[in-house]
Amino acid sequence: MVVKVYGQAMASASRRVLSCLIEKNVEFEVIPVDLMKGEHKQPEFLKLQPFGVVPAIQDGDFILYESRAIIRYYAEKYREQGPDLLGKTIEERGVVEQWLEVESQNYHPHIYNLVKHLLFHPKMGLPIDEKLMEESEEKLGKVLDIYEDRLSKSKYLAGDFYSLADLTHLPFTHYLVNDIGKAYMIKDRKHVSAWWDDITSRSSWKQVLEL
Amino acid sequence: MVVKVYGQAMASASRRVLSCLIEKNVEFEVIPVDLMKGEHKQPEFLKLQPFGVVPAIQDGDFILYESRAIIRYYAEKYREQGPDLLGKTIEERGVVEQWLEVESQNYHPHIYNLVKHLLFHPKMGLPIDEKLMEESEEKLGKVLDIYEDRLSKSKYLAGDFYSLADLTHLPFTHYLVNDIGKAYMIKDRKHVSAWWDDITSRSSWKQVLEL
Repeated sequence: MVVKVYGQAMASASRRVLSCLIEKNVEFEVIPVDLMKGEHKQPEFLKLQPFGVVPAIQDGDFILYESRAIIRYYAEKYREQGPDLLGKTIEERGVVEQWLEVESQNYHPHIYNLVKHLLFHPKMGLPIDEKLMEESEEKLGKVLDIYEDRLSKSKYLAGDFYSLADLTHLPFTHYLVNDIGKAYMIKDRKHVSAWWDDITSRSSWKQVLEL
Repeated sequence: MVVKVYGQAMASASRRVLSCLIEKNVEFEVIPVDLMKGEHKQPEFLKLQPFGVVPAIQDGDFILYESRAIIRYYAEKYREQGPDLLGKTIEERGVVEQWLEVESQNYHPHIYNLVKHLLFHPKMGLPIDEKLMEESEEKLGKVLDIYEDRLSKSKYLAGDFYSLADLTHLPFTHYLVNDIGKAYMIKDRKHVSAWWDDITSRSSWKQVLEL
């Protein structure tokens, strides 16, 4: 069964899902949803995803949305296929969940502000809130200092294995490093920088960027 | 092994954890962390939780933080003990994860703004951002409209079984209904209101409120 991914191959949350599907060697096709035309707010799409945001997946009769839920679903469904992205024990999975939540609650809000204002606002003719940029960079820096300490003790966030905890950071950190001139936030932290080089050198991520 | 919960029995994220532990009939003790005295920013606590927020748990040698990760861990570890809070199949768990993420990404940011400004700012002598309150209430209302539709089709968020997806909404919605005069946001929506009555009538939640 080919998994249908409704979204845009270049949209950040869709990339989170695609990266997981490629790691797990799951066949998929991207069904484009044109955000510029507002297709994500049309009744047909809202039947799949009532909040009107991409991505959503359809796998046979099964529909699921929220990228961080979709990656957990496929990591679980294909646990024995490809790398185990959830850890081998209940405790390892606990720590994977902990860092998934750190990304969602502590990392994402600040990096989202930076990317939204510095990458997307100019394209949309919206102003940049400079005070918010300063605060967001400071807060993200403090979070990255904790990552630096963590990554000085283990190769990946949840331990010595690549997991969803690392994967979930890829799309927005890619913007930070490549699109808004803030690569130094990663590069100036030795262990974070080595981790970033490692996780972005995975074949799955390279394939996502080529889509 | 008695689980040590570092936090405050009355703090919202701690209540999320305690509610899960009680559902699963897991013995615990709360180790108070005095937020007013800044104990959560002291080196001893930062060894448990480097971001300096409560709660964190210690279960033998195993330490875990982030309330939404802790509840997943205990729901998994004690899957066969008490109600299955993750669903019975991989697909059911997928849908539980979807609504856990909806709470985290779509519901929490707006309800957090409302509770922070209307409940905590006055206690701290901080001003209330009225424009933000208006926007947050409007956005939360739109999210609750989608919940209303969902709950007209299934008894609970993830299906016809109580799960972490419901449980995760308890602490902040409790503030909304009981502490900031916005109970109408729940009560005016027939199915949301019935759902709220149902999930707050569980013995586990009543016990949490008595701690």
